[in-house]
Amino acid sequence: MAAGRLAVVGLGPGSPGLMAPDARAELDRAQDIVGYATYVQLAGAFRPDQTLHVSDNREELDRARHAFALAASGRHVAVVSSGDPGVFAMAAAVLEALEQSDDPAWHAVDLVVLPGISAAQAAAARAGAPLGHDFCTISLSDNLKPWAVIERRLDAAAGADFVLALYNPVSRARPWQLDSALSLLRRHRDAATPVVLGRDIGRPGETLTVTTLGAVTAAMVDMRTVVIVGSSETRVLPRSGHGAWVYTPRRYPER
Amino acid sequence: MAAGRLAVVGLGPGSPGLMAPDARAELDRAQDIVGYATYVQLAGAFRPDQTLHVSDNREELDRARHAFALAASGRHVAVVSSGDPGVFAMAAAVLEALEQSDDPAWHAVDLVVLPGISAAQAAAARAGAPLGHDFCTISLSDNLKPWAVIERRLDAAAGADFVLALYNPVSRARPWQLDSALSLLRRHRDAATPVVLGRDIGRPGETLTVTTLGAVTAAMVDMRTVVIVGSSETRVLPRSGHGAWVYTPRRYPER
Repeated sequence: MAAGRLAVVGLGPGSPGLMAPDARAELDRAQDIVGYATYVQLAGAFRPDQTLHVSDNREELDRARHAFALAASGRHVAVVSSGDPGVFAMAAAVLEALEQSDDPAWHAVDLVVLPGISAAQAAAARAGAPLGHDFCTISLSDNLKPWAVIERRLDAAAGADFVLALYNPVSRARPWQLDSALSLLRRHRDAATPVVLGRDIGRPGETLTVTTLGAVTAAMVDMRTVVIVGSSETRVLPRSGHGAWVYTPRRYPER
Repeated sequence: MAAGRLAVVGLGPGSPGLMAPDARAELDRAQDIVGYATYVQLAGAFRPDQTLHVSDNREELDRARHAFALAASGRHVAVVSSGDPGVFAMAAAVLEALEQSDDPAWHAVDLVVLPGISAAQAAAARAGAPLGHDFCTISLSDNLKPWAVIERRLDAAAGADFVLALYNPVSRARPWQLDSALSLLRRHRDAATPVVLGRDIGRPGETLTVTTLGAVTAAMVDMRTVVIVGSSETRVLPRSGHGAWVYTPRRYPER
Protein backbone atom coordinates (compact mmCIF):
# COMPACT_ATOMS: atom_id res chain seq x y z
CA MET A 1 0.00 0.00 0.00
CA ALA A 2 1.36 3.42 -0.94
CA ALA A 3 2.05 5.77 1.93
CA GLY A 4 -0.22 8.77 2.10
CA ARG A 5 0.40 12.41 2.79
CA LEU A 6 0.24 14.34 6.05
CA ALA A 7 0.12 18.12 5.72
CA VAL A 8 0.27 20.29 8.82
CA VAL A 9 -1.67 23.30 7.63
CA GLY A 10 -1.52 26.83 9.02
CA LEU A 11 -4.89 28.54 8.71
CA GLY A 12 -3.57 31.95 9.63
CA PRO A 13 -5.41 34.13 12.15
CA GLY A 14 -8.87 33.14 10.92
CA SER A 15 -9.94 35.27 7.97
CA PRO A 16 -9.89 33.46 4.61
CA GLY A 17 -8.09 36.51 3.21
CA LEU A 18 -5.11 35.80 5.44
CA MET A 19 -4.83 32.07 4.67
CA ALA A 20 -2.09 31.17 2.16
CA PRO A 21 -3.31 29.68 -1.15
CA ASP A 22 -1.06 26.65 -0.57
CA ALA A 23 -2.90 25.99 2.70
CA ARG A 24 -6.27 26.36 0.97
CA ALA A 25 -5.19 23.96 -1.79
CA GLU A 26 -4.02 21.40 0.76
CA LEU A 27 -7.36 21.56 2.58
CA ASP A 28 -9.19 21.06 -0.71
CA ARG A 29 -6.99 18.10 -1.58
CA ALA A 30 -7.21 16.34 1.80
CA GLN A 31 -9.40 13.28 2.31
CA ASP A 32 -9.23 13.59 6.11
CA ILE A 33 -9.17 16.79 8.16
CA VAL A 34 -7.85 16.42 11.71
CA GLY A 35 -8.04 19.17 14.29
CA TYR A 36 -9.51 20.95 17.25
CA ALA A 37 -13.18 21.80 16.61
CA THR A 38 -12.70 25.58 16.54
CA TYR A 39 -9.90 25.30 13.99
CA VAL A 40 -11.74 22.85 11.75
CA GLN A 41 -14.59 25.39 11.67
CA LEU A 42 -12.14 28.21 10.87
CA ALA A 43 -10.82 26.19 7.94
CA GLY A 44 -14.07 26.72 6.06
CA ALA A 45 -16.56 24.40 4.42
CA PHE A 46 -15.63 20.86 3.41
CA ARG A 47 -17.11 18.52 0.84
CA PRO A 48 -19.23 15.48 1.77
CA ASP A 49 -16.42 13.19 0.57
CA GLN A 50 -14.00 14.67 3.12
CA THR A 51 -13.93 13.17 6.61
CA LEU A 52 -13.63 15.48 9.61
CA HIS A 53 -11.85 14.17 12.72
CA VAL A 54 -12.57 16.71 15.42
CA SER A 55 -10.86 16.36 18.78
CA ASP A 56 -10.23 18.20 22.00
CA ASN A 57 -7.57 20.90 22.08
CA ARG A 58 -5.46 19.32 24.79
CA GLU A 59 -4.79 16.05 23.04
CA GLU A 60 -2.19 17.30 20.57
CA LEU A 61 0.01 14.21 20.57
CA ASP A 62 -2.98 11.85 20.25
CA ARG A 63 -4.23 13.94 17.37
CA ALA A 64 -0.84 13.78 15.66
CA ARG A 65 -0.73 9.99 16.06
CA HIS A 66 -4.22 9.64 14.67
CA ALA A 67 -3.19 11.71 11.65
CA PHE A 68 -0.09 9.53 11.08
CA ALA A 69 -2.14 6.36 11.34
CA LEU A 70 -4.51 7.66 8.67
CA ALA A 71 -1.68 8.85 6.40
CA ALA A 72 0.26 5.60 6.83
CA SER A 73 -2.81 3.77 5.56
CA GLY A 74 -2.57 5.76 2.33
CA ARG A 75 -4.91 8.66 3.04
CA HIS A 76 -4.24 12.32 2.32
CA VAL A 77 -4.55 14.03 5.69
CA ALA A 78 -4.54 17.68 6.73
CA VAL A 79 -3.88 18.55 10.36
CA VAL A 80 -5.13 22.07 10.91
CA SER A 81 -3.71 24.70 13.25
CA SER A 82 -4.73 28.30 13.59
CA GLY A 83 -1.97 30.80 12.92
CA ASP A 84 1.36 29.21 12.03
CA PRO A 85 1.54 25.48 12.88
CA GLY A 86 5.23 26.03 13.65
CA VAL A 87 4.56 28.55 16.43
CA PHE A 88 3.18 26.92 19.62
CA ALA A 89 1.03 24.64 17.50
CA MET A 90 0.70 21.26 15.82
CA ALA A 91 3.94 20.98 13.79
CA ALA A 92 6.08 20.19 16.85
CA ALA A 93 3.51 17.65 18.11
CA VAL A 94 3.50 15.90 14.72
CA LEU A 95 7.30 15.63 14.72
CA GLU A 96 7.28 14.39 18.31
CA ALA A 97 4.83 11.67 17.30
CA LEU A 98 7.03 10.73 14.34
CA GLU A 99 10.24 10.62 16.39
CA GLN A 100 8.59 8.37 18.99
CA SER A 101 7.39 5.89 16.37
CA ASP A 102 9.42 3.04 14.94
CA ASP A 103 6.74 2.18 12.39
CA PRO A 104 8.38 2.41 8.94
CA ALA A 105 4.97 3.23 7.44
CA TRP A 106 4.82 6.43 9.51
CA HIS A 107 8.32 7.42 8.40
CA ALA A 108 7.37 6.81 4.75
CA VAL A 109 4.49 9.30 4.90
CA ASP A 110 4.88 12.37 2.69
CA LEU A 111 5.02 14.93 5.51
CA VAL A 112 4.85 18.68 4.83
CA VAL A 113 4.37 21.74 7.03
CA LEU A 114 2.59 24.74 5.47
CA PRO A 115 3.27 27.96 7.34
CA GLY A 116 0.70 30.60 8.19
CA ILE A 117 0.43 34.12 9.52
CA SER A 118 0.58 33.89 13.31
CA ALA A 119 -1.64 35.72 15.81
CA ALA A 120 1.08 38.14 16.89
CA GLN A 121 1.74 39.15 13.29
CA ALA A 122 -1.94 39.79 12.65
CA ALA A 123 -2.26 41.87 15.83
CA ALA A 124 0.96 43.74 15.03
CA ALA A 125 -0.28 44.60 11.53
CA ARG A 126 -3.55 46.00 12.90
CA ALA A 127 -1.61 48.06 15.46
CA GLY A 128 1.09 49.30 13.07
CA ALA A 129 4.50 47.75 13.51
CA PRO A 130 5.25 46.94 17.18
CA LEU A 131 7.39 43.97 16.04
CA GLY A 132 9.46 46.16 13.72
CA HIS A 133 12.63 45.57 15.74
CA ASP A 134 14.11 42.58 17.63
CA PHE A 135 11.43 40.66 19.53
CA CYS A 136 10.87 37.49 21.55
CA THR A 137 7.90 35.18 21.28
CA ILE A 138 7.02 33.41 24.53
CA SER A 139 4.14 31.18 25.55
CA LEU A 140 2.98 31.92 29.10
CA SER A 141 1.52 28.43 29.44
CA ASP A 142 3.25 26.45 32.14
CA ASN A 143 1.43 23.25 31.21
CA LEU A 144 4.52 21.86 29.47
CA LYS A 145 7.36 23.89 31.02
CA PRO A 146 8.18 25.06 34.52
CA TRP A 147 7.06 28.57 35.43
CA ALA A 148 10.64 29.29 36.53
CA VAL A 149 11.79 28.86 32.91
CA ILE A 150 9.17 31.34 31.72
CA GLU A 151 10.23 33.86 34.37
CA ARG A 152 13.87 33.46 33.43
CA ARG A 153 13.04 34.07 29.77
CA LEU A 154 10.84 37.09 30.48
CA ASP A 155 13.60 38.51 32.65
CA ALA A 156 16.27 37.94 29.99
CA ALA A 157 14.14 39.33 27.16
CA ALA A 158 13.04 42.39 29.12
CA GLY A 159 16.55 43.02 30.40
CA ALA A 160 17.90 43.08 26.84
CA ASP A 161 15.06 45.41 25.76
CA PHE A 162 13.36 43.06 23.31
CA VAL A 163 9.75 43.63 22.34
CA LEU A 164 7.72 40.69 23.69
CA ALA A 165 4.91 38.77 22.02
CA LEU A 166 3.10 36.72 24.67
CA TYR A 167 1.02 33.74 23.56
CA ASN A 168 -1.41 31.77 25.75
CA PRO A 169 -1.48 34.60 28.29
CA VAL A 170 -4.29 33.22 30.46
CA SER A 171 -6.77 30.40 30.67
CA ARG A 172 -9.28 29.22 33.24
CA ALA A 173 -6.66 26.85 34.65
CA ARG A 174 -3.91 29.51 34.56
CA PRO A 175 -5.40 32.66 36.08
CA TRP A 176 -2.36 34.23 37.81
CA GLN A 177 0.46 33.78 35.30
CA LEU A 178 -0.12 36.92 33.24
CA ASP A 179 -0.25 39.27 36.24
CA SER A 180 2.92 37.65 37.52
CA ALA A 181 4.60 38.14 34.12
CA LEU A 182 3.46 41.77 33.94
CA SER A 183 4.84 42.45 37.43
CA LEU A 184 8.17 41.05 36.33
CA LEU A 185 8.20 43.18 33.17
CA ARG A 186 7.37 46.33 35.18
CA ARG A 187 10.67 45.90 37.00
CA HIS A 188 12.43 46.49 33.64
CA ARG A 189 10.11 48.82 31.73
CA ASP A 190 8.45 52.15 32.30
CA ALA A 191 4.71 52.20 33.09
CA ALA A 192 4.18 54.17 29.85
CA THR A 193 5.52 51.29 27.70
CA PRO A 194 2.94 50.59 24.97
CA VAL A 195 1.03 47.31 25.17
CA VAL A 196 -1.11 45.92 22.36
CA LEU A 197 -3.89 43.41 23.02
CA GLY A 198 -5.13 41.66 19.91
CA ARG A 199 -8.17 39.45 20.39
CA ASP A 200 -9.56 37.27 17.60
CA ILE A 201 -7.79 39.39 15.00
CA GLY A 202 -9.01 38.35 11.55
CA ARG A 203 -12.19 36.82 13.00
CA PRO A 204 -15.66 38.28 13.50
CA GLY A 205 -15.74 40.58 16.52
CA GLU A 206 -11.97 41.16 16.58
CA THR A 207 -10.76 43.78 19.03
CA LEU A 208 -7.51 45.69 19.20
CA THR A 209 -6.63 47.51 22.41
CA VAL A 210 -3.68 49.85 22.80
CA THR A 211 -2.80 50.40 26.44
CA THR A 212 0.28 50.65 28.63
CA LEU A 213 2.30 48.37 30.86
CA GLY A 214 1.13 50.44 33.80
CA ALA A 215 -2.56 50.07 32.95
CA VAL A 216 -2.86 46.55 31.57
CA THR A 217 -4.29 43.86 33.83
CA ALA A 218 -5.08 40.20 33.30
CA ALA A 219 -8.77 41.06 33.48
CA MET A 220 -8.39 42.75 30.04
CA VAL A 221 -7.05 39.54 28.49
CA ASP A 222 -8.41 36.10 27.72
CA MET A 223 -7.11 32.94 26.07
CA ARG A 224 -7.93 34.27 22.60
CA THR A 225 -5.75 37.37 23.10
CA VAL A 226 -2.13 37.86 22.11
CA VAL A 227 -0.25 40.43 24.21
CA ILE A 228 2.54 42.54 22.70
CA VAL A 229 4.67 44.52 25.15
CA GLY A 230 6.86 47.21 23.61
CA SER A 231 10.55 47.85 24.19
CA SER A 232 11.86 51.11 25.66
CA GLU A 233 11.81 52.47 22.09
CA THR A 234 8.28 51.50 21.06
CA ARG A 235 6.20 54.54 20.14
CA VAL A 236 2.55 55.51 19.97
CA LEU A 237 1.11 58.12 17.64
CA PRO A 238 -2.44 59.32 17.12
CA ARG A 239 -4.40 57.57 14.41
CA SER A 240 -6.71 59.54 12.20
CA GLY A 241 -10.26 59.16 13.46
CA HIS A 242 -9.76 56.55 16.14
CA GLY A 243 -7.15 55.09 18.44
CA ALA A 244 -3.44 54.98 17.98
CA TRP A 245 -0.66 53.47 15.91
CA VAL A 246 2.09 51.59 17.71
CA TYR A 247 5.47 50.92 16.18
CA THR A 248 9.01 50.07 17.17
CA PRO A 249 11.53 52.10 15.18
CA ARG A 250 14.12 50.34 13.07
CA ARG A 251 16.83 52.48 14.64
CA TYR A 252 18.10 51.78 18.19
CA PRO A 253 20.10 54.60 19.76
CA GLU A 254 23.59 54.51 21.22
CA ARG A 255 23.27 54.70 24.99
CA MET B 1 -9.37 66.10 -2.82
CA ALA B 2 -10.13 62.79 -1.12
CA ALA B 3 -7.20 61.17 0.65
CA GLY B 4 -5.99 57.97 -0.91
CA ARG B 5 -4.97 54.66 0.54
CA LEU B 6 -1.56 53.37 1.52
CA ALA B 7 -1.29 49.62 2.03
CA VAL B 8 1.93 48.11 3.32
CA VAL B 9 1.73 44.70 1.75
CA GLY B 10 3.55 41.56 2.89
CA LEU B 11 4.38 39.35 -0.09
CA GLY B 12 5.41 36.39 2.05
CA PRO B 13 8.60 34.48 1.29
CA GLY B 14 8.21 34.71 -2.47
CA SER B 15 5.99 31.95 -3.79
CA PRO B 16 2.51 33.09 -4.89
CA GLY B 17 1.16 30.11 -2.93
CA LEU B 18 2.38 31.65 0.31
CA MET B 19 1.02 35.17 -0.31
CA ALA B 20 -2.23 35.98 1.53
CA PRO B 21 -5.26 36.62 -0.70
CA ASP B 22 -5.75 40.00 1.02
CA ALA B 23 -2.24 40.98 -0.08
CA ARG B 24 -2.94 39.82 -3.63
CA ALA B 25 -6.20 41.78 -3.71
CA GLU B 26 -4.46 44.91 -2.47
CA LEU B 27 -1.82 44.62 -5.19
CA ASP B 28 -4.54 44.22 -7.81
CA ARG B 29 -6.36 47.26 -6.49
CA ALA B 30 -3.34 49.56 -6.22
CA GLN B 31 -2.71 52.32 -8.77
CA ASP B 32 0.90 52.73 -7.64
CA ILE B 33 3.31 50.04 -6.50
CA VAL B 34 6.29 51.25 -4.47
CA GLY B 35 9.19 49.03 -3.52
CA TYR B 36 12.65 47.63 -3.88
CA ALA B 37 13.16 46.18 -7.37
CA THR B 38 13.49 42.55 -6.24
CA TYR B 39 10.29 42.75 -4.21
CA VAL B 40 8.28 44.45 -6.95
CA GLN B 41 9.32 41.56 -9.22
CA LEU B 42 8.31 39.02 -6.54
CA ALA B 43 4.88 40.62 -6.36
CA GLY B 44 4.02 39.27 -9.79
CA ALA B 45 2.78 40.86 -13.00
CA PHE B 46 1.07 44.23 -13.02
CA ARG B 47 -1.33 45.81 -15.47
CA PRO B 48 -0.33 48.63 -17.84
CA ASP B 49 -2.55 51.04 -15.88
CA GLN B 50 -0.53 50.44 -12.70
CA THR B 51 2.56 52.56 -12.10
CA LEU B 52 5.68 50.93 -10.65
CA HIS B 53 7.98 53.03 -8.47
CA VAL B 54 11.13 50.98 -8.05
CA SER B 55 13.82 52.17 -5.66
CA ASP B 56 16.99 51.06 -3.95
CA ASN B 57 16.72 48.84 -0.89
CA ARG B 58 18.53 51.19 1.47
CA GLU B 59 16.21 54.14 1.06
CA GLU B 60 13.35 52.86 3.19
CA LEU B 61 12.32 56.18 4.70
CA ASP B 62 12.48 57.97 1.34
CA ARG B 63 10.35 55.23 -0.15
CA ALA B 64 7.82 55.55 2.66
CA ARG B 65 7.63 59.33 2.14
CA HIS B 66 7.18 58.91 -1.58
CA ALA B 67 4.32 56.49 -0.92
CA PHE B 68 2.63 58.93 1.48
CA ALA B 69 2.97 61.79 -1.01
CA LEU B 70 1.24 59.67 -3.65
CA ALA B 71 -1.49 58.50 -1.27
CA ALA B 72 -2.06 62.01 0.08
CA SER B 73 -2.74 63.12 -3.50
CA GLY B 74 -5.61 60.62 -3.65
CA ARG B 75 -3.88 57.58 -5.18
CA HIS B 76 -4.22 53.99 -4.03
CA VAL B 77 -0.67 52.92 -3.21
CA ALA B 78 0.84 49.57 -2.26
CA VAL B 79 4.26 49.52 -0.61
CA VAL B 80 5.62 45.99 -1.01
CA SER B 81 7.86 44.09 1.41
CA SER B 82 8.97 40.51 1.19
CA GLY B 83 7.95 38.35 4.13
CA ASP B 84 5.99 40.21 6.79
CA PRO B 85 6.22 44.02 6.46
CA GLY B 86 6.05 44.18 10.27
CA VAL B 87 9.25 42.14 10.77
CA PHE B 88 12.40 44.12 9.90
CA ALA B 89 10.65 45.62 6.92
CA MET B 90 8.63 48.54 5.58
CA ALA B 91 5.80 48.92 8.13
CA ALA B 92 8.03 50.56 10.74
CA ALA B 93 9.55 52.89 8.12
CA VAL B 94 6.08 53.95 6.97
CA LEU B 95 5.03 54.76 10.54
CA GLU B 96 8.27 56.64 11.15
CA ALA B 97 7.57 58.73 8.06
CA LEU B 98 4.03 59.41 9.28
CA GLU B 99 5.11 60.37 12.79
CA GLN B 100 7.70 62.80 11.43
CA SER B 101 5.17 64.55 9.18
CA ASP B 102 2.85 67.36 10.25
CA ASP B 103 1.00 67.32 6.92
CA PRO B 104 -2.69 66.67 7.72
CA ALA B 105 -3.09 65.10 4.26
CA TRP B 106 -0.62 62.37 5.21
CA HIS B 107 -2.46 61.70 8.47
CA ALA B 108 -5.77 61.49 6.58
CA VAL B 109 -4.50 58.67 4.33
CA ASP B 110 -6.28 55.33 4.76
CA LEU B 111 -3.25 53.39 6.04
CA VAL B 112 -3.31 49.61 6.43
CA VAL B 113 -0.65 46.98 7.07
CA LEU B 114 -1.23 43.52 5.57
CA PRO B 115 0.83 40.83 7.28
CA GLY B 116 2.70 38.06 5.50
CA ILE B 117 4.55 34.85 6.24
CA SER B 118 8.07 35.81 7.24
CA ALA B 119 11.32 34.17 6.05
CA ALA B 120 12.00 32.41 9.35
CA GLN B 121 8.53 30.86 9.32
CA ALA B 122 8.98 29.57 5.78
CA ALA B 123 12.40 28.10 6.62
CA ALA B 124 11.05 26.60 9.85
CA ALA B 125 8.17 24.94 8.00
CA ARG B 126 10.55 23.36 5.47
CA ALA B 127 12.77 22.12 8.31
CA GLY B 128 9.95 20.85 10.53
CA ALA B 129 9.25 22.95 13.62
CA PRO B 130 12.43 24.52 15.05
CA LEU B 131 10.34 27.50 16.27
CA GLY B 132 7.91 25.23 18.09
CA HIS B 133 8.89 26.63 21.49
CA ASP B 134 9.87 30.10 22.79
CA PHE B 135 12.11 31.95 20.33
CA CYS B 136 13.74 35.33 19.68
CA THR B 137 13.93 37.10 16.34
CA ILE B 138 17.01 39.28 15.95
CA SER B 139 18.43 41.23 13.03
CA LEU B 140 22.22 41.01 12.92
CA SER B 141 22.42 44.25 10.95
CA ASP B 142 24.26 46.94 12.86
CA ASN B 143 23.40 49.61 10.31
CA LEU B 144 20.72 51.07 12.58
CA LYS B 145 21.72 49.81 16.03
CA PRO B 146 25.02 49.42 17.88
CA TRP B 147 26.68 46.01 17.68
CA ALA B 148 26.88 46.04 21.48
CA VAL B 149 23.06 45.95 21.64
CA ILE B 150 22.99 42.95 19.33
CA GLU B 151 25.60 41.14 21.44
CA ARG B 152 23.67 41.88 24.61
CA ARG B 153 20.50 40.48 23.05
CA LEU B 154 22.19 37.37 21.70
CA ASP B 155 23.72 36.79 25.10
CA ALA B 156 20.40 37.22 26.92
CA ALA B 157 18.47 35.04 24.48
CA ALA B 158 21.06 32.27 24.46
CA GLY B 159 21.45 32.41 28.23
CA ALA B 160 17.72 31.88 28.70
CA ASP B 161 17.76 29.00 26.16
CA PHE B 162 15.55 30.58 23.52
CA VAL B 163 15.66 29.34 19.94
CA LEU B 164 17.07 32.15 17.78
CA ALA B 165 15.95 33.30 14.34
CA LEU B 166 18.66 35.53 12.88
CA TYR B 167 17.73 37.92 10.06
CA ASN B 168 20.16 39.89 7.90
CA PRO B 169 23.03 37.60 8.98
CA VAL B 170 25.64 38.96 6.56
CA SER B 171 26.09 41.39 3.70
CA ARG B 172 29.05 42.65 1.71
CA ALA B 173 29.34 45.59 4.08
CA ARG B 174 28.89 43.38 7.19
CA PRO B 175 31.19 40.37 6.72
CA TRP B 176 32.27 39.61 10.33
CA GLN B 177 29.07 40.00 12.34
CA LEU B 178 27.71 36.48 11.88
CA ASP B 179 30.94 34.74 12.91
CA SER B 180 31.08 37.00 15.94
CA ALA B 181 27.48 36.13 16.82
CA LEU B 182 28.12 32.40 16.37
CA SER B 183 31.18 32.58 18.64
CA LEU B 184 29.05 34.22 21.29
CA LEU B 185 26.33 31.57 20.96
CA ARG B 186 28.93 28.77 21.23
CA ARG B 187 29.71 29.98 24.74
CA HIS B 188 26.13 29.04 25.73
CA ARG B 189 25.26 26.08 23.50
CA ASP B 190 26.74 22.73 22.66
CA ALA B 191 28.49 22.28 19.29
CA ALA B 192 25.83 19.69 18.39
CA THR B 193 23.02 22.28 18.62
CA PRO B 194 21.00 22.09 15.39
CA VAL B 195 21.21 25.04 13.00
CA VAL B 196 18.90 25.56 10.02
CA LEU B 197 19.91 27.72 7.08
CA GLY B 198 17.02 28.66 4.81
CA ARG B 199 17.97 30.46 1.62
CA ASP B 200 15.37 31.85 -0.77
CA ILE B 201 12.71 29.56 0.69
CA GLY B 202 9.61 29.76 -1.47
CA ARG B 203 11.60 31.06 -4.45
CA PRO B 204 13.22 29.24 -7.38
CA GLY B 205 16.46 27.57 -6.31
CA GLU B 206 15.59 27.54 -2.60
CA THR B 207 17.99 25.61 -0.37
CA LEU B 208 17.56 24.27 3.13
CA THR B 209 20.66 23.22 5.07
CA VAL B 210 20.58 21.46 8.42
CA THR B 211 23.90 21.73 10.21
CA THR B 212 25.19 22.34 13.74
CA LEU B 213 26.44 25.27 15.75
CA GLY B 214 29.88 23.62 15.73
CA ALA B 215 29.98 23.29 11.94
CA VAL B 216 28.24 26.41 10.67
CA THR B 217 30.39 29.26 9.34
CA ALA B 218 29.56 32.61 7.78
CA ALA B 219 30.82 31.26 4.45
CA MET B 220 27.70 29.04 4.32
CA VAL B 221 25.40 32.06 4.62
CA ASP B 222 24.53 35.06 2.50
CA MET B 223 22.15 38.00 2.77
CA ARG B 224 19.26 35.93 1.41
CA THR B 225 19.61 33.34 4.19
CA VAL B 226 17.77 33.19 7.48
CA VAL B 227 19.65 31.36 10.26
CA ILE B 228 17.77 29.44 12.96
CA VAL B 229 19.82 28.27 15.95
CA GLY B 230 18.18 25.68 18.17
CA SER B 231 17.83 25.69 21.94
CA SER B 232 19.35 23.00 24.15
CA GLU B 233 16.16 20.99 23.52
CA THR B 234 15.98 21.24 19.72
CA ARG B 235 16.09 17.81 18.10
CA VAL B 236 17.05 16.33 14.74
CA LEU B 237 15.58 13.14 13.31
CA PRO B 238 16.20 11.35 10.03
CA ARG B 239 13.89 12.27 7.20
CA SER B 240 12.69 9.60 4.85
CA GLY B 241 14.78 9.67 1.70
CA HIS B 242 16.82 12.80 2.30
CA GLY B 243 18.09 15.04 5.04
CA ALA B 244 16.66 15.60 8.47
CA TRP B 245 13.74 17.07 10.33
CA VAL B 246 14.44 19.65 13.03
CA TYR B 247 11.99 20.49 15.77
CA THR B 248 11.87 22.01 19.22
CA PRO B 249 9.60 20.02 21.53
CA ARG B 250 6.65 21.71 23.17
CA ARG B 251 7.72 20.31 26.53
CA TYR B 252 10.66 21.83 28.45
CA PRO B 253 12.03 19.67 31.26
CA GLU B 254 12.45 20.53 34.92
CA ARG B 255 16.15 20.99 35.57
